Amino acid sequence: MARRGNLFILSAPSGAGKSSLISALLNDKPADMQVSVSHTTRAMRPGEENGVHYHFVDVDEFKALIEQGAFFEWAEVFGNYYGTSRITIEQTLDRGIDVFLDIDWQGARQVKAQIPDAIGVFILPPSRAELERRLRSRGQDSDEIIAGRMAEAQSEISHYGEFDYLLVNADFDTALSELRAIVCAERTRLARQVEAHGGMLDDLLAD
Amino acid sequence: MARRGNLFILSAPSGAGKSSLISALLNDKPADMQVSVSHTTRAMRPGEENGVHYHFVDVDEFKALIEQGAFFEWAEVFGNYYGTSRITIEQTLDRGIDVFLDIDWQGARQVKAQIPDAIGVFILPPSRAELERRLRSRGQDSDEIIAGRMAEAQSEISHYGEFDYLLVNADFDTALSELRAIVCAERTRLARQVEAHGGMLDDLLAD
Repeated sequence: MARRGNLFILSAPSGAGKSSLISALLNDKPADMQVSVSHTTRAMRPGEENGVHYHFVDVDEFKALIEQGAFFEWAEVFGNYYGTSRITIEQTLDRGIDVFLDIDWQGARQVKAQIPDAIGVFILPPSRAELERRLRSRGQDSDEIIAGRMAEAQSEISHYGEFDYLLVNADFDTALSELRAIVCAERTRLARQVEAHGGMLDDLLAD
Repeated sequence: MARRGNLFILSAPSGAGKSSLISALLNDKPADMQVSVSHTTRAMRPGEENGVHYHFVDVDEFKALIEQGAFFEWAEVFGNYYGTSRITIEQTLDRGIDVFLDIDWQGARQVKAQIPDAIGVFILPPSRAELERRLRSRGQDSDEIIAGRMAEAQSEISHYGEFDYLLVNADFDTALSELRAIVCAERTRLARQVEAHGGMLDDLLAD
């Protein structure tokens, strides 16, 4: 029997560098890691691919999936539906593939409630000054807008204690190697190794 | 405040390659990792160094340490005392140094009972045939002696389920990099990071 994949929940305030870390981790397209792909009813845009950027479905399909309880969470935004499919994730995990879920603390809490062995990783900027610098460097915004972003970031950060691991993204390469270490280490956890090597254990312990 | 060190318990049947893995891990003498050094009352041998190979103490000192409850475990072997000092380990952990404890499943159980956040890593040979080969290659021993070693190894292996991580030492470099990943990942666990970065978290969340 193959080991089951691990489900990683990655959360962070904006400005922590989460997207860059996930991109770098999956850069060389490892066969045993995938970002979770959401479902949406919005139209496909040029350059987008079904099953890669989103699972594109029509409204009837989406509503049927809601009825089936297929989603961890879903929302309607400007008339389009978006959702995270529990069934898709479970099927990917069953194939031995680690799944990375890029969601906020509220989504993280919902997923944890449904998949208790999901592994939560929270990513932090190294300081308030650096966070403010990163929030500022995104454009020529007013102090008021920056203050709003800072308040939003702080609200997200205040939930760090609900996660299993905490990464401090002071140096990008260090944070990336820590993230890789977490992914590797979690694969050697007792439960996963017993799934992967049950036959070997039987062999070692046979009379 | 500095992060506290992690206590790693490493156990394995003989023939799994545990000693080689520990040596390789600590080969370049990292400042933040140490093998736990036992106390003994036996005489120092040529080439041995106090505090490196053992803490050499006399019988009165050793008995005083027993009285103080300083040991996780101790034993008398051929008139000499040997013990693992809880106090020495705690002091090393307090200095932010990870400590590696090379003990069998019985010792592991005793330590876990006293330091519940100790992290247990069990190392396995990749197959029964390979284990037998490794047990054989140690000398020109009779089948009876090999069978005895195999039974002892199996008895140790039967306790794998009491550990947090399971390493399969099929390829040495892979097992070593997995062990390194576990050590790195455990440092990014929530509790350790809050110890290490409490000030930063206060700064990020300040009004």
